[in-house]
Amino acid sequence: MSLTSQRSKVNSSKINEATSSWVYSFGNGKADGSAEMRNLLGGKGANLAEMCNLGLPVPPGFTVSTDVCTYYYSHDRVFPNDLSDQIDAQLILIEDSVGARFGDFNNPLLVSVRSGSRASMPGMMDTVLNLGLNDKTVEGLANKSGDSRFAYDSYRRFIQMFGDVVMGVDHYLFEESLESLKLGRGITLDTELSAEDLQHLVESYKNIIIAELDKPFPQDPKQQLWDAIAAVFGSWMNQRAITYRRLHEIPAGWGTAVNIQAMVFGNMGNDCATGVAFTRDPSTGENVFYGEYLCNAQGEDVVAGIRTPQHLTLAGREANGSKLPSMEEVMPDVFRQLADVRSMLEIHYKDMQDIEFTVQKGKLYMLQTRTGKRTAAAAVRIAVDMVDEGLIDQVDAINRVDPVQIEQLLHPRLDPNAIRNVLTRALPASPGAASGKIVFSADIAEDMSQKGEDVILVRIETSPEDIHGMHAARAILTTRGGMTSHAAVVARGMGRPCVAGAGEILINYSDEVMSIGGRNFSAGDLITIDGGKGEVIEGSVPTIEPEVSGGFARLMEWADKVRKMKVRANAETPADVMVAKEFGAEGIGLCRTEHMFFDPERIVAVRQMIMADDEAGRRDALHELLPFQRNDFQEIFRVMSGLPVTIRLLDPPLHEFLPHSDEEINEVAKASGKDPKKMRDVAARLHESNPMLGHRGCRLGISYPEIYEMQAKAIFEAAITVSSESGKSVIPEIMIPLAATKTELDILKNKIDSVAELVFASLGKKISYTVGTMIELPRAALRADELAEIADFFSFGTNDLTQTTFGISRDDAASFLPDYQHYGILEVDPFVTIDVEGVGELIKMAVERGRSSCSDIKLGICGEHGGDPASVHFCHRLGLDYVSCSPYRVPIARLAAAQASTVKDE
Amino acid sequence: MSLTSQRSKVNSSKINEATSSWVYSFGNGKADGSAEMRNLLGGKGANLAEMCNLGLPVPPGFTVSTDVCTYYYSHDRVFPNDLSDQIDAQLILIEDSVGARFGDFNNPLLVSVRSGSRASMPGMMDTVLNLGLNDKTVEGLANKSGDSRFAYDSYRRFIQMFGDVVMGVDHYLFEESLESLKLGRGITLDTELSAEDLQHLVESYKNIIIAELDKPFPQDPKQQLWDAIAAVFGSWMNQRAITYRRLHEIPAGWGTAVNIQAMVFGNMGNDCATGVAFTRDPSTGENVFYGEYLCNAQGEDVVAGIRTPQHLTLAGREANGSKLPSMEEVMPDVFRQLADVRSMLEIHYKDMQDIEFTVQKGKLYMLQTRTGKRTAAAAVRIAVDMVDEGLIDQVDAINRVDPVQIEQLLHPRLDPNAIRNVLTRALPASPGAASGKIVFSADIAEDMSQKGEDVILVRIETSPEDIHGMHAARAILTTRGGMTSHAAVVARGMGRPCVAGAGEILINYSDEVMSIGGRNFSAGDLITIDGGKGEVIEGSVPTIEPEVSGGFARLMEWADKVRKMKVRANAETPADVMVAKEFGAEGIGLCRTEHMFFDPERIVAVRQMIMADDEAGRRDALHELLPFQRNDFQEIFRVMSGLPVTIRLLDPPLHEFLPHSDEEINEVAKASGKDPKKMRDVAARLHESNPMLGHRGCRLGISYPEIYEMQAKAIFEAAITVSSESGKSVIPEIMIPLAATKTELDILKNKIDSVAELVFASLGKKISYTVGTMIELPRAALRADELAEIADFFSFGTNDLTQTTFGISRDDAASFLPDYQHYGILEVDPFVTIDVEGVGELIKMAVERGRSSCSDIKLGICGEHGGDPASVHFCHRLGLDYVSCSPYRVPIARLAAAQASTVKDE
Repeated sequence: MSLTSQRSKVNSSKINEATSSWVYSFGNGKADGSAEMRNLLGGKGANLAEMCNLGLPVPPGFTVSTDVCTYYYSHDRVFPNDLSDQIDAQLILIEDSVGARFGDFNNPLLVSVRSGSRASMPGMMDTVLNLGLNDKTVEGLANKSGDSRFAYDSYRRFIQMFGDVVMGVDHYLFEESLESLKLGRGITLDTELSAEDLQHLVESYKNIIIAELDKPFPQDPKQQLWDAIAAVFGSWMNQRAITYRRLHEIPAGWGTAVNIQAMVFGNMGNDCATGVAFTRDPSTGENVFYGEYLCNAQGEDVVAGIRTPQHLTLAGREANGSKLPSMEEVMPDVFRQLADVRSMLEIHYKDMQDIEFTVQKGKLYMLQTRTGKRTAAAAVRIAVDMVDEGLIDQVDAINRVDPVQIEQLLHPRLDPNAIRNVLTRALPASPGAASGKIVFSADIAEDMSQKGEDVILVRIETSPEDIHGMHAARAILTTRGGMTSHAAVVARGMGRPCVAGAGEILINYSDEVMSIGGRNFSAGDLITIDGGKGEVIEGSVPTIEPEVSGGFARLMEWADKVRKMKVRANAETPADVMVAKEFGAEGIGLCRTEHMFFDPERIVAVRQMIMADDEAGRRDALHELLPFQRNDFQEIFRVMSGLPVTIRLLDPPLHEFLPHSDEEINEVAKASGKDPKKMRDVAARLHESNPMLGHRGCRLGISYPEIYEMQAKAIFEAAITVSSESGKSVIPEIMIPLAATKTELDILKNKIDSVAELVFASLGKKISYTVGTMIELPRAALRADELAEIADFFSFGTNDLTQTTFGISRDDAASFLPDYQHYGILEVDPFVTIDVEGVGELIKMAVERGRSSCSDIKLGICGEHGGDPASVHFCHRLGLDYVSCSPYRVPIARLAAAQASTVKDE
Repeated sequence: MSLTSQRSKVNSSKINEATSSWVYSFGNGKADGSAEMRNLLGGKGANLAEMCNLGLPVPPGFTVSTDVCTYYYSHDRVFPNDLSDQIDAQLILIEDSVGARFGDFNNPLLVSVRSGSRASMPGMMDTVLNLGLNDKTVEGLANKSGDSRFAYDSYRRFIQMFGDVVMGVDHYLFEESLESLKLGRGITLDTELSAEDLQHLVESYKNIIIAELDKPFPQDPKQQLWDAIAAVFGSWMNQRAITYRRLHEIPAGWGTAVNIQAMVFGNMGNDCATGVAFTRDPSTGENVFYGEYLCNAQGEDVVAGIRTPQHLTLAGREANGSKLPSMEEVMPDVFRQLADVRSMLEIHYKDMQDIEFTVQKGKLYMLQTRTGKRTAAAAVRIAVDMVDEGLIDQVDAINRVDPVQIEQLLHPRLDPNAIRNVLTRALPASPGAASGKIVFSADIAEDMSQKGEDVILVRIETSPEDIHGMHAARAILTTRGGMTSHAAVVARGMGRPCVAGAGEILINYSDEVMSIGGRNFSAGDLITIDGGKGEVIEGSVPTIEPEVSGGFARLMEWADKVRKMKVRANAETPADVMVAKEFGAEGIGLCRTEHMFFDPERIVAVRQMIMADDEAGRRDALHELLPFQRNDFQEIFRVMSGLPVTIRLLDPPLHEFLPHSDEEINEVAKASGKDPKKMRDVAARLHESNPMLGHRGCRLGISYPEIYEMQAKAIFEAAITVSSESGKSVIPEIMIPLAATKTELDILKNKIDSVAELVFASLGKKISYTVGTMIELPRAALRADELAEIADFFSFGTNDLTQTTFGISRDDAASFLPDYQHYGILEVDPFVTIDVEGVGELIKMAVERGRSSCSDIKLGICGEHGGDPASVHFCHRLGLDYVSCSPYRVPIARLAAAQASTVKDE
């Protein structure tokens, strides 16, 4: 299936065979390619060429271009006719350069074969080293190097690598054979094997291949080379690679290049070495040379951990109190050369580089350079430093930091060096980490936290009535629900770490026990939640507190200068609103009024309202709620002092405010002096099969206009009070949720306007206000032109719009979304990043239609996507006025919005 | 709010005041207008003019056109300047014609003032009679008629009517005064009041008006006339009229006309009479003259039931065994004249007419003619007869019958003459009527029905596990859910009457009691369900069995000749499939496979499959289900013998197949030898907050491919078996539900194709088949171009598409849809008629995009809307290939599709 569709894409790319040069040479200070030719040569090949052009010492070689891969797949896996001649010519260039001949029994040239595509791509065949060895050339290598152990070790490594990745023989067969040899010889380390042992091993390996494949290990170096090239191309279409491409939207048509390069050896004596380095410290970003090396070793030894790698620099050695000498001390000349390379690469690439090198008999060879991965803190520091150093400008700096990464900077995280006993992994629903005692109810969480205990609230799922417990807890763990489940959304809003949808955990509330994989954990047991990784960890794990550097503040300042969109926050408690403002929110984009209904002081009146037999009864109860709501809004208006505040009128179905189980109902009824039977009847009557699609949003405002009237009254009275006391104008933006038709808005806006008139008359003061709507149903998007005739603003509720457009309940999606991502059906979780093709088209349509009837309508987004960088880019492209997200994501959105506005040609 | 928007529409209609003629005369055998001028003159005015043009005797008068109304509302309720002169001129024409003067003390002209808009519209001011009477002219009338009682009775009636509808005085005040007079005089009938009594009453009435309005009853006839005209126009904008227009999509800009006509009196002696008649029998359609009259009476007496109306014809009198003489006997000359009018009108209008007439002193006057309302049976008979009579052609006949009405012909209905004690009214979810004993569970329904009892299944809501009980019951009543709830959809499919969403009823399953408005009904109590009216009735009510005439078959034949779209049925049981075929279904558009999973023989295996720990366990259980499914499909293929059958793969979430309450779980677990705890755990794990948006549809096929593999296998094996035994080709259409992305289809189609290959290889025979998808999510509609690259057909699942586009759960909508219809937010229930503006746009988009990538893709609709005439018209306009609906709606869809294809200029 996928092959067919991918094939057709491959077919579509046209290649003119006659005029093609299929291979690109590099080495000896010059190259056919350059860093700009990444698409043709892949990342590795382009950078090897670039380093040659810079005059850096690179072992000679050549790159078989991605065009060959494309040709290969559009011609039933046949190579271009003239490729063979071109490769032969390239081999001669290498032979001439290094003074050895491919396949020569006495002086054999060995090469490495490495894949290298345009984008870094795990899952593909990576590397074959030492290619060119056979039963004859191994002798030549032994003689020439004077080290027969080295030669046979290279040969057995080659057979194993080639056998595994090129010929497809299970690597455990080779490992088994090696182990059994070591067992027979009574030794434990590979390095203890003698040249003879290795010679025997080579024979065993060759026998394994014959036994498995019924054909011998190829002795012809040319055959080895062609097989290796075909294997690299073949791995482009293996399942892991296909899945990876699908997940990362990499077209199959890009293809991979193959790099063939003369081998250099860091293990031919003490004047040899191999190492890896970063041009700056990738953890802190400090402008120091940072790396490790090993004398007389091969690259894989540094990685394998057989020997302890040594520091590159004296400063690094001293800082870490290491006794092993640094390269700076051992090989000062070569080190100076390497330090020069470091400077040259940074000046050239204008970014921190991750490099690999080998020293063969005192001569330095560069094997790779690429942009180095770094921590969030390092990314910020490097970007800011490089501006100060004049290497890059502010816009470059803004684009050097991944917005998602900076979330790390704002939350505590687990000490990376601490041991973690991970019990289960689930959705990383809200970042940060915390340890505490397990509690299974919101009330207990609150009690224990008031006694100074750190608690982790563990629930199957959470609902608005758990809010106080979520506030009290250090972190939240749920066994059901996705990235935008109630728990996830609220936890992000509060800045609490949260792992959601941990389906492997079974909770038994009555026994206060949860079990994971057969183990039981009781209330009071310690666990740790890593919300950034989605891990649930046994016991307590030390955490590192966040530290925000001055550089971060400067970077954000630069970002604020260039971005076009405003950034607001979704928040309703004064504490959250405060956090949001500190993080730079320029307004509240979504103040959810229902969270205010759950406060213990108020819930009694709320329930009284729900249980009332008629409108008069409801009005009595609402009258009691009015002062609370008014006070809520006053506090928010005061904190935001003049910044816009969008208040959403009551949204959830009323049954969410009632107790659920029979026991709870009895308890609540008793406590509030109500008839439990009646409460049960009301709860039964209000029960809904699909509450997400039920009697909620503005449907409540239509059925029970008195609720919205009370809320509007509270808003206007609060706004007038605060604007009178502060002298600043307060302009509330009243938002009507879940509209599907113009008439709903028509009716409710009139209602709000009438309340405004009454309040203005009774208080003797008028204020400005706007009335808008959420666009969170496909129908609202389709009829946006009509809605815009009434609404002063649209705020896209992308959570619900995603739920309805896809027909996926975010609370239930955890059961199949993993399958959907596994099979590549959904490349990204649509609740995390806006599905541009589906949901995005509706948003685009709504923007166009809304503007067609009201050209200056204010447009924003207040779904969880407001804090997702890819979604922020999408909003920028649509020209929205603002994005609104949870307070802790405000900096992310600010940076992402800045980056979006620096993108050209879109 | 609505006034503003309606005002703006009014504004948009441009009227050129200078050249307008505002009034149109009729009478004396000629008229300015005609029947074609309905838009300008309203229905009543146009037909009065037409009758004049036909030379029929119509009292002279004139029509104030709808343009005046439009002018009035676009000029702040001011009349055109020249209207007054034009009306004066018209009055003179009437005066000359009847020989009386408006306002003349001795010989006063009296007129009637009646509204008349383009479409018949209740809620508007209807009629003021006897206008022109005042304290002086009443004396003139008394003298001229020689009947002072008649004169004063006319005057007091006039004051009451005018006071009520024109001046806005509560009519009960007048009635109170009348009653108190009768009480004082010790009489009970109005007719016993003397002329003096009535004269007193006139004084009381005038005093009431002064007391209420602080101004006198207007004595100036001109003033009366202008007030009445203004009142007619005013009533165009009253709330009831506005709501009615919104509900029936009548633009406010149409306006109303006003008809002013000389009064004629049927109550001036025994040579006077008044009556109403239909040109054919409106109940049966028989071609006989059918009507009632009263001698010496006024129109309202016929209606008021004070005297028993007499038959028009001798035949009618004899057929009803009436002793009272017919008009044919009493006034043979006038009757003959009337019979001639009847013929003339039928030939002229080519349709059955509903007429009103008055005989004044031996002279016949026609007061109204309009198209007569009729029963479904009459509509069919009249249409077919008129074709035979050469009055109309077949296409006319097709358009003469309302498709919705013919549903009456296919179901039993309650005897219209029986007394109904209606307990509550709710949604008319499935037509037909039945009486039976209340039962509260499907199992008991089945038991009792096997013992020969008629039962009514009463449930809060139904689910697939109630199917056997629904089959067993005579009718179904639910307290929750809308027109497309499970109960409604299934009941319609089975042809069972159903009332759904009866929220006033509270059910207590454990006590087996339901209560309505404080009254309790227990299991075993008799109730009656009228599914066509949505009524729940106490006790048993006699029903009338349906009878389908030969005329109906001929009409349907004509319909089949002209329609463009095919009509299929949604059915899965062999019985339903048979019914569908008999009703003319040309294929199965939706065969739901899940209904087959609930059979007691199978549900054990289904639950075993759900409870299995791994794929192997699921495959074992599915292996047991395979023969059942295969047999199901064989039976359907046999019945449909070669007609297409679209089979939808499993759609509902798996938890629907598990028992729900703890007791049920224990019971089921015990019976099937399973661990109840494990079953509870599985049920808890599968529980969903919003099952409608959950792990269902093709998401099941992705997570558990073995389920769809088994179903595909059963389909292919069944198709090969039946095509081998019948020699006819069987082409199954396999439908994948709930797709949102191309990749889902890609993966599942491949799976189905692989199964096909395996079955074909093992049975040694190949058949053709197609694989398509439902379009039931907004995202699927938006990405239809991609889906059409894989799918052979699209079937629009408009139920789910409506749920997701509107964000409304059909199961929960009953709580607010009534409010929404009341406020005119939804003009029609979107689950009944496709919401063309929202859902319809998505369908249109999907049709266009689907065809853009696959021009010959087969397109159909299989939601409940497939049986709704308005929706069928919409599907026709989009050029769909077929509609599919429940079996009993197939004839409706056939007729509606035929009507759609006769519509021009769309």
